Amino acid sequence: MDNETVGKMIISIIGGTRGLGYWIARFLRKEGFRVIITGRDPDTGRSAAGRIGAEYCRDNVRAASVADVVVVSVPIEVTSDVLREVAPHVREGGLLMDVTSVKEEPARVMERFIARGAHYIPAHPMFGPRVSSLEGQVVVLTPSGDNPWLDDVIRFLEERKARVIVTDPSTHDRMMSVVQVLTHFAYISIAATLEAEGVDIRESRKFASPIYNLMIDTIARIVAQNPYLAYSIQTHNTYGQEMRDCFLRTATRLNEMLRDGRMDDFVSGMGLAAKNIDDVEASLGRSDKAIEALNQELIVLRNSVGQEIGIKHIYSGRVHVGVLESVTPDYAMLRSGKRVMKFKISNIRVLSEEELRRWKVENLDLRVYDVSALFSDSVDPEVIAHLIGLLDCVVDVKIVDLYRGPQIPPDHFSLTLRVKVFDRECYEEILGVLRGIGASIR
Amino acid sequence: MDNETVGKMIISIIGGTRGLGYWIARFLRKEGFRVIITGRDPDTGRSAAGRIGAEYCRDNVRAASVADVVVVSVPIEVTSDVLREVAPHVREGGLLMDVTSVKEEPARVMERFIARGAHYIPAHPMFGPRVSSLEGQVVVLTPSGDNPWLDDVIRFLEERKARVIVTDPSTHDRMMSVVQVLTHFAYISIAATLEAEGVDIRESRKFASPIYNLMIDTIARIVAQNPYLAYSIQTHNTYGQEMRDCFLRTATRLNEMLRDGRMDDFVSGMGLAAKNIDDVEASLGRSDKAIEALNQELIVLRNSVGQEIGIKHIYSGRVHVGVLESVTPDYAMLRSGKRVMKFKISNIRVLSEEELRRWKVENLDLRVYDVSALFSDSVDPEVIAHLIGLLDCVVDVKIVDLYRGPQIPPDHFSLTLRVKVFDRECYEEILGVLRGIGASIR
Repeated sequence: MDNETVGKMIISIIGGTRGLGYWIARFLRKEGFRVIITGRDPDTGRSAAGRIGAEYCRDNVRAASVADVVVVSVPIEVTSDVLREVAPHVREGGLLMDVTSVKEEPARVMERFIARGAHYIPAHPMFGPRVSSLEGQVVVLTPSGDNPWLDDVIRFLEERKARVIVTDPSTHDRMMSVVQVLTHFAYISIAATLEAEGVDIRESRKFASPIYNLMIDTIARIVAQNPYLAYSIQTHNTYGQEMRDCFLRTATRLNEMLRDGRMDDFVSGMGLAAKNIDDVEASLGRSDKAIEALNQELIVLRNSVGQEIGIKHIYSGRVHVGVLESVTPDYAMLRSGKRVMKFKISNIRVLSEEELRRWKVENLDLRVYDVSALFSDSVDPEVIAHLIGLLDCVVDVKIVDLYRGPQIPPDHFSLTLRVKVFDRECYEEILGVLRGIGASIR
Repeated sequence: MDNETVGKMIISIIGGTRGLGYWIARFLRKEGFRVIITGRDPDTGRSAAGRIGAEYCRDNVRAASVADVVVVSVPIEVTSDVLREVAPHVREGGLLMDVTSVKEEPARVMERFIARGAHYIPAHPMFGPRVSSLEGQVVVLTPSGDNPWLDDVIRFLEERKARVIVTDPSTHDRMMSVVQVLTHFAYISIAATLEAEGVDIRESRKFASPIYNLMIDTIARIVAQNPYLAYSIQTHNTYGQEMRDCFLRTATRLNEMLRDGRMDDFVSGMGLAAKNIDDVEASLGRSDKAIEALNQELIVLRNSVGQEIGIKHIYSGRVHVGVLESVTPDYAMLRSGKRVMKFKISNIRVLSEEELRRWKVENLDLRVYDVSALFSDSVDPEVIAHLIGLLDCVVDVKIVDLYRGPQIPPDHFSLTLRVKVFDRECYEEILGVLRGIGASIR
C-alpha cells in the first residue's frame, strides 16, 4: 500500500474505544489511515477518538458499511453477535477481521454472514495493549479460500516486523488450548493456592533465587489480567475443558505417586515429560540469560550514579536523559535540569552509551558552527578534522574550506571546519583545542 | 578470616565428588582452603580431587574427624544417615553443616548427634551447580543457640555477595513448600500434560509471544532437573503433601466453576488470588524487561556483523573476543584469528563497548611506548596529551618530560608522552597524528 492508498483507506474498529481495539485504532492512525471507532459509551468514544484523531460513530452497522476494512475488537462472548451484526454490511470488495483469541467460532460466523463480494480474515494478535510496537509480536491469521486481501495484510504486518502465522482455525484453537488455556489455568490455580494457604508472597520472594522470582512474576502477570477475559479464554476454546481435565488427571496421578512413595513411577513420568520438551538446553540458557540481563542492568545502574544516563520506558518507549542521582533496589532517581524524576526500575531499560548518543543526535537541537583557523603548512587538515571528530560533544565535522592566498601568512593555510555539536560549550571546547595545538583562530 | 587462617583451615566435603558438593569443593579450593572430598567411588573421587587440587578420602568418618569444617552434601534421602554417621566425629570447636533443601529433619539429627564441644549450622544454598559465582545467590542458614561460627560464616558468604537469610528450620520448610514443592509440582504436571496430549512444543512456541516462551523455558528448567532430586524435594518436605493437596483441591474447584459456567465465582476467586500477589505492576515490569533485554541483545548482535565484539559465556564466565561473522536466531559465529567459533546465543551475553574495552585493558598484553616530539611554544602540552588519549586504541597517556634547552630550537619545546596502547599499530597511529598537527618526532 502506498501513501496515497493509505490516506484514502477507511478502517472501522468496532469496539475501538478501549483495550486492544483502541490500541489498533491508535496504531492505524499513526500509520496514516482514516479510522472510525465505535463503542457503546459516546463520551468514552468521543474522547478516545479526539486523542488519536479518529472519528467516533455510535452505530456499528454504519461504521462497517462506510469502511474498506472492518476490524471487530469486542469481548469474546459478544464477538459472534457483533460479527453477525456487521458482516452483512461490509461493502463489496471490503475486508472483515476479528481479533478474538479463539478462531473456530468467529470463522464459522464470518463465513456464514459475510456480505456477497466481501472478504474476511479471522485473526488473533498474540499480544495485549501493553506492547509498544508490532516488532517481534505474533499475529495468527486463519483465512479460508482465495482472498485478494491476504497478501496485503501479511505484507503490512511483516513490514512492521510482526511474525505472521497463517493456519486454520482448528489448529489455532488446539494450540491455544496449550499456550493459553492450560498455562493460564495452572498459573491461576497456583496463585489461588497461595492465597488459600495464606502465603506471604513478598516474604517468599526473599527465599527465592532470581529464577523463582521470575517464575512468580510470570504467575503474577497471568493473574493480573482482566478476570473476565481470563474466564472467556478458558471457556470459549472448544478444547479447553479437555485440556484442563487432562491436567487435573495428570496432576492427581503424580500426587498419588508421591503420596504412595512410588518413586520409580514418578521418575519415569517426569522423564517422559522432559523428553517431550524440544530443547531443554536452550530453555535453560534463555531463562538464565534473562536473569543475567536483569542483574547486569542493576550493576550498570549502581555504577552510574552521578553520571548522565538515558533510560527508556519499556511501555511508552519514551526516553529520558539526565544525571542519575540515586538507585535503590526498586527505584532510580534521575535529575534533568531542576526536575528530579522517579522511575520504577522494573519499567525502564538503561540505554547503552551508543544508544544514548544516537538518541541525543536524533532528538536534541544540534548546533552548527563554522570554525576558521590558521595552521602552518606542516599540519595535515585531515588529521585536524579527525581529532576534532573524536571529541565527545562533536556529532559531525567537515572541511568546508582550505585556503592559501594574499591574506594568509606565508607557509600557512586557513582551514574552515563545519562542526555539528550538542551545545555552545562544545564550540568553545573546539576553539580551545585548536588554540592548544598552535592554531590561531580567525 | 585472613589468608593465613584460610590456608590452614581444612574443610571436608562429604559427597564432594559431584554435583553441588563438587561445586562447593572447587569453590573453596579457589578460595585457598585445604579441601578433602569423600564419595563412594574412588575413581570418580580421585579424578575429581585431582582436577581441583583437593584430597580424596574414602572414609567419611576420617574425613570428618580431621577437618575444621565438615559440609555434608549428599542426596536428601541419605542426609540423615550420613549426618548421624559423621556428627559424633566433628572435632571440638569444629563446625558441621549440611546443604539439603529441607531443614527440619537435618537440624534435629545434627542437634542430637553432634559431638560435645562441636557446632552445627543447617544450611540451604538456593542454587545448583550451574551458577558461576555466589553473587546474588540466596543461602538460608537455620542455626540454633549460640554459635561462635555463625558470624564468620555469614561474613564469608556476604563478602562474596551472597544474600544470607537466617531463620528457623520450620519457617524455611514452610517457605520451601511454596517456592519449591508447589511450583515444581505444578510445572511438572503441566509438562506431563503436554506429553500426555502429544503436544508438539516446538510448534507451539511459534504461536507464542516471547513471554509465553519464557514461561515454557521455566517449565523446561524444572522438568530438566534430576528427577530423583525432584522426587526428594516433593516427598521430604513435611508441608509438601498438604500443599499439593490444597493445589489439587483449588484447581478442581476452579475447573468446576469453568465447566458449570459460574463466571462470578471464577472471577472473584481470581480476584482474591491477584490481590494476594505483592506487587503486580513490578512483576509485569520485570518479566517484560527480561524479554526486552533478550530482544535488545539479538538486535545488537544483528547490527554487529562484521565488527569486533566481546561475548561472555553465562556459565563459565569466559570472555571471547573476535569479529562477528554471522548470526542466526540460535547461533553466533565469531572469528578470532583463523579460528571460527560457534556459540549458542542462549548461552552468551554480548559485552557492552565499555565492558569490552575494560576486558581488553585487563586481559590483553598492553604495550608501553615513550614518544618524543618537538612543538612550537604556542602549543599546549596538556591539550596534546588529551587528544592522544581520545584515540580509540590508547589506554593511557602521561606527560613524562617537558624540556627546553640547548638541543631544542628556539621558541620550541620537547614533549615526551608515555602511552599505553593495544598494539604497535597504535603507536604508528600516534606518530601519524603528531606529525599531522605539525610536530616533528625526535
